[in-house]
This record gives sequence, structure tokens and C-alpha cells, in this order.
Amino acid sequence: MKVTVHRKAHFNAAHRLFNPKWDDAKNYEIFGKCSNPFYHGHNYELIVAVTGDIDPETGFVMDLKVLRKLIESEVLKNFDHKNLNEEVAVFATLNPTAENIAVVIWNKLRKTINKGLELSVTLYETPRNYVTYTGD
Amino acid sequence: MKVTVHRKAHFNAAHRLFNPKWDDAKNYEIFGKCSNPFYHGHNYELIVAVTGDIDPETGFVMDLKVLRKLIESEVLKNFDHKNLNEEVAVFATLNPTAENIAVVIWNKLRKTINKGLELSVTLYETPRNYVTYTGD
Amino acid sequence: MKVTVHRKAHFNAAHRLFNPKWDDAKNYEIFGKCSNPFYHGHNYELIVAVTGDIDPETGFVMDLKVLRKLIESEVLKNFDHKNLNEEVAVFATLNPTAENIAVVIWNKLRKTINKGLELSVTLYETPRNYVTYTGD
Amino acid sequence: MKVTVHRKAHFNAAHRLFNPKWDDAKNYEIFGKCSNPFYHGHNYELIVAVTGDIDPETGFVMDLKVLRKLIESEVLKNFDHKNLNEEVAVFATLNPTAENIAVVIWNKLRKTINKGLELSVTLYETPRNYVTYTGD
Amino acid sequence: MKVTVHRKAHFNAAHRLFNPKWDDAKNYEIFGKCSNPFYHGHNYELIVAVTGDIDPETGFVMDLKVLRKLIESEVLKNFDHKNLNEEVAVFATLNPTAENIAVVIWNKLRKTINKGLELSVTLYETPRNYVTYTGD
Amino acid sequence: MKVTVHRKAHFNAAHRLFNPKWDDAKNYEIFGKCSNPFYHGHNYELIVAVTGDIDPETGFVMDLKVLRKLIESEVLKNFDHKNLNEEVAVFATLNPTAENIAVVIWNKLRKTINKGLELSVTLYETPRNYVTYTGD
Repeated sequence: MKVTVHRKAHFNAAHRLFNPKWDDAKNYEIFGKCSNPFYHGHNYELIVAVTGDIDPETGFVMDLKVLRKLIESEVLKNFDHKNLNEEVAVFATLNPTAENIAVVIWNKLRKTINKGLELSVTLYETPRNYVTYTGD
Repeated sequence: MKVTVHRKAHFNAAHRLFNPKWDDAKNYEIFGKCSNPFYHGHNYELIVAVTGDIDPETGFVMDLKVLRKLIESEVLKNFDHKNLNEEVAVFATLNPTAENIAVVIWNKLRKTINKGLELSVTLYETPRNYVTYTGD
Repeated sequence: MKVTVHRKAHFNAAHRLFNPKWDDAKNYEIFGKCSNPFYHGHNYELIVAVTGDIDPETGFVMDLKVLRKLIESEVLKNFDHKNLNEEVAVFATLNPTAENIAVVIWNKLRKTINKGLELSVTLYETPRNYVTYTGD
Repeated sequence: MKVTVHRKAHFNAAHRLFNPKWDDAKNYEIFGKCSNPFYHGHNYELIVAVTGDIDPETGFVMDLKVLRKLIESEVLKNFDHKNLNEEVAVFATLNPTAENIAVVIWNKLRKTINKGLELSVTLYETPRNYVTYTGD
Repeated sequence: MKVTVHRKAHFNAAHRLFNPKWDDAKNYEIFGKCSNPFYHGHNYELIVAVTGDIDPETGFVMDLKVLRKLIESEVLKNFDHKNLNEEVAVFATLNPTAENIAVVIWNKLRKTINKGLELSVTLYETPRNYVTYTGD
Repeated sequence: MKVTVHRKAHFNAAHRLFNPKWDDAKNYEIFGKCSNPFYHGHNYELIVAVTGDIDPETGFVMDLKVLRKLIESEVLKNFDHKNLNEEVAVFATLNPTAENIAVVIWNKLRKTINKGLELSVTLYETPRNYVTYTGD
């Protein structure tokens, strides 16, 4: 009897899309205004979903207070009000597209969440563009 | 050719999180302010999803007017404007976490919906916390 | 050059609508299922709006970090995860309708916010029912 | 390492639910006010989801600018501000329920999106009624 | 001590923008695709706001159950799942723009709501376009 | 008979809060993480409201297609996917708080909108923080 619990969080960050192997013209051709070297930014909305059995003692799959704190320590502390390209080490060499940010967040959370639980990460870059990564 | 149809509904209820095997201190340690013996409450948002083939006569997987009435008779009639712990019999002995409420709703609806259709229940306790149960 | 700044917050609480001068039948006649003696509850969404001149040093009408903390200390600390009728003193003798809750919140905040600033409080009881009080 | 990218779009259209094999009384019995011969309409919200590997050069599963343009040319150009029954050929003989509209949109997009990518279409007819089709 | 209470409702309708004094070319020039003679449609979201003193007996400015029923009898009954141009008499000679629909709704409700209460009507034609009329 | 018409738009931008008369320590004391010299960013949601009489020929206060294009040419073209501090001239010497951005947008639009119409600008910096400027 598996249930999925979801917790929403958000962070505000600056970024630009950029492949260092390409010159500026090629970056602009592929990424358009998202490659602006002065950066732009987003209110990222994050949904973390954890699937597992209900603990009969608590009625919880996972205590959402614990999940909220993990999101804060693993994600928000390092991403919120930051420039992702300049201040988050992994994005020095990895293009901070929504896809790549979601995978990075999944990897960070996967290390701290009980291995018996499945994990999924959804990240809204804007209300119209969002991505999901489940580790598959 | 399977399509999933979703219907949203909502109900307002009071509850507290509480395990009768534990004393008040232990309940507070695990459930925090959610264990307040005077209760608190939520605007629960419910999404019922039904998956099946499209009936070629109607173009429907299931008539959503019928699904809406089932949600009203099976869920809202008993849960809306109620104290879940005090007035909904199943929660006299089952902790009314979002997880357990979703499973209870799924079980109620499963009995009334055609067995050839798959069923999923998503329950928002707050805009930031929600759960999904698919019967797996 | 007056600008209005808004800050949203939320709290979850139980309540019932009840006039102690009336018997149960009259309370049910007027308030319907909202008068359930076992209580029900809501996810209240609160919007506090403050209007004034922009401070040329900060570019702020009022620092929203300060406003957020005032909302926490004056409202959320006493209302969140509470039973309004049983645990918030003012509602021992005042019916906790959305109208009255909004006026109570406005009065609490008015005492702590600079008198040169105008104040407005909007309170959502459900996504479909909400009230606004401006002190007029 | 598969990621799903989602793009939201919307269109406004008129429609009625109608089975030409039935007389008006039977259509009204099954479809109720949705069978009004003068039509009614909706703000349809469309979510197109595409699943595949992240391209290491771009960090994209699929360029959402390209997906946005495909949605415009394949769906919005023909559906937006139209009467679905009268002006979209396929619905001359297919009842424009949300289920059938979603399948039609999926089929249109499936022809233009790389076969190595999975496709899913979600269509909101109203904020409370929506459907999903994944091609299964 | 005046408080404003708000009630949201919605209806789905077809319409076209059209001035009968103009020919089709002129109508298309002014109204674009909104003048499509086959109609299009919307999920209209309606917010009715009523301002007045709090009744000390009930704690209400106006019982929202009563307001909900007035909206149903005065607006939804005649507008929901209708073609506004063809089936709502006033729009036979009045262009059903959001502005004009809001004024018509305000006039209908004004007749039925206590004269001591102020009335405001907000109508969303789409999530991005909406209008407000206060009777001024 | 005055009606207010509203049009929503959005833009994504980077910014930092910063007063050049203060040193970094003072900027951090006042603006906290919002003063990060590497910038952060937001999905800004903009609501432009225009109030005036309904034109009896069109049924419009103002053609929202025209208003949408004005918002694009006066605001989005210069703000979207930009670094407000670095690339929008006015913010070289004006702190880009939500308050100041709203006033700048109001001033830009005021020059292009008919003087007989009233103008109001609401700007969401996040879903929880937003400001309104009406020119008063």
C-alpha cells in the first residue's frame, strides 16, 4: 500500500544558459535571450515527491517536517537568492537548464532520503515551463 | 487507448494527529502543533482520477457528472464541515493524516466505480503538502 | 507618491460559527453546517497591505521582512494550528466569522505598524469566500 | 537518465457535446446542458509533456521554444477562438469531449515530435475537470 | 466599520464580439478573431463583492449562502452553458465584451441586494484579461 | 459608468537590492540576501489596470490587444530576460525594489495611454510579495 507524499518549496535565483564550448553567437543562436551574459532569473517552484509504505505508528510515509528541513538544508540553503552559474559549484561546468537543475536536486536529496523510498523532483522555472525527474 | 479523467472537489474539516497508544508528550514530540487536542483544520482539495477506454457512444471515459455525485455521496457528505477524529467513524482508530485520509477515500470510491477503470486519489492538505494513492 | 506593498501568509485553524445568545436550533438555522459543535477548519490565506511613501534610502515602503515577522508574532503565533473559539481569547465572545477575524487581525497589526502607513487586511476562508477590512 | 519537460498553453473555443446518431432528447439526457445546440465554451489549458534523455550539449530534453512553436502551429492555429464542432474538421464526426480533444491533440503532436521521445497531453476543460492521454 | 465580503463563482459560455452597425470586414478589423461568426467561448470567473457593516448578531456583512444563491438565480441560471449573443436577451443589441457583461451582472445583482450595501463585480474572461465595475 | 480593465503579463529578470551610498556590510544589514552582488532573480507578474468609460461602439474601455502591445513595447522589450541593475538605465541609480520597478513601469505606460484613462500597476515579485502603484 504505497502512497506518495509531496512537499512544495521555492527559491529565487539568477542564471544564464551557456555552453562554454561555443562562442557567444552560437550560444545566442541556441539559447536566445536565455544566454544573456548579464543573467536573468526565476522564482523556481520545487515539488519533492516521496513514495513508500505508510508507517502504522505515525500514519506518515515520511514526516513532512523532516522533508521540509532536508529541502532547506540540501537545496534552499545553497540555491536561494544565488547566481546558479557563479555560486553553485556544480553549474560551473553544467548548464543550469531546468532539466539539469532538477537532476542535481534529485541527486542531492537521494543521498539523504531512506533508500526504501522512491523519489521524484519537479521543478517549475516559470508557470508555463516545468520538468520532472524520477531517477529512471 | 486509455485516457485519465480528473475531477476536483473540496471539503473543509477539523482534525488532529494523534496516536492513542502514546501519551500527550510523545504525540507532541512526533506531531508537533498538529497534535493540538483542541483541533485545527484545513480546506482539503481532492482530485479523483479515473483511467479507462473512451466509450465511442459518449466520448467519455466516465461521465464526470456521475463521478461528481459519487464524490459528493461517498466523501463530501461525510467529511465536509466535520471533525474527522470525532465524527468520521474510521478515524476513531486511524490517525487522520493526509496519507490515511487518501486511502480511506480511495477505498470508499473503489467500491462504487466500475472495476474495469483504474482509480487514483490525490488529496491536498495545504497548497504545499499533498499525497497521492493509486491502490498499488 | 504612495505605493501599497502586500505580503501573503497563511494559517490553519479550526472554528465554528456560533452565537451564544441563540439555542442550537437557531444557530443551525442561521449558520448551517458551519455551526457544527465539533468544529470544522480552514487553510486561511492572509494578505496584509501597507500603503505609504517610498523611503528614498531603501526603496521600500516598509521592509517586507519586518512585516513578515510582525504577521508571525501578532497573528500566526496565536492563530496557526489553533481552535479559534477555544484557544483565542477574543473569540470566546466574538463569533469567528471571516469578517470578525479580519477585523481582529487588523486591530492587532494596526498597533504595531507606523501610524503614517495605511493598513488593509484580506482574509481568504476558502478560495471562493474572502473578506477585506481597511479600517474605514 | 530520462527527464520530462512540460509546456503549458491555452486556447479559447466554443463546442457542444453531441452524438448525431441520437435525437435531441437523448443528447440532452446524456450530455445535459453541455448539449446546448447554441454552443457554450471554455478556456482550455493544455499541458504537453515530452520525456527523453538530456542532450549533453544543450542541457535540454527538447528545446521548449521549439515545442511552443509546434503547439502553436499544430493546435492553437486551428483551435483557438474556433467553434470546434463547426470549424475543426475532425469534430464533424467525433464528439468534442475533453477526452477526444486530448487524443486528437496527441495524434497531431506525435507526428511532429522525435519518435525517441515519449509524449503526454493533459487538457483542462475547466479548473475542476481535466484529462490526460499518454498514447498507451 | 465596513468590511467587504467576496464570493467567487464561474460559468462557461460562448460569445462573439460584434457590432451590427458594421460589416464583417470592419468587425474583423476591430475585434479580430474574437468576431468569429461561429463563436468561441470562455470559462468566466466572477467575483461579487459586497461592502457594509458587520451585523453584530451574525458576524456577517451578508450571509454568503444567500449571496451564492442570488448569483445562481440572477446570473448562472441564465448565463451558464449558454451562447450569450443568441440566448441572453440583453446581448441581442449589446456587444458581450467583458466590460458590458460585468455591467449587466452588476445591474441584475444591484436590484436584489440591500441598498445599504455597496456592490462590485469583477469578471475574468481569461486568467490574463479581467474587468471590474463598481457602479461609479 | 467607469469600468476597470486588467491585463496580466510577465517577465523574468535578475536584480539585486543595493544602495551605492552604503558599503557592503550596510547593504547586507538592510537588504540581507537580496543584496547578493552576484544577483538573484524573479518571475515578475505584472497587472496593468486602466479605468474609464465604455466606448459604446466597441464595448471596450480600451482594446486589450492594444494594451498588450504597449506592455510589450514599453516594458517587456526592455525588462524581460535582463539584469535590471546592469541593463536598464534607470536602475543604474535607482534601487530596483518592487516599489521602484512598479513606479518606473507606471511612468512609462502613463506617457502612452490616453490621459482620460486612469492607470494602476501591480507587480508580483514573488507569489507572496507584491506592490501596487496608482499614481496618487
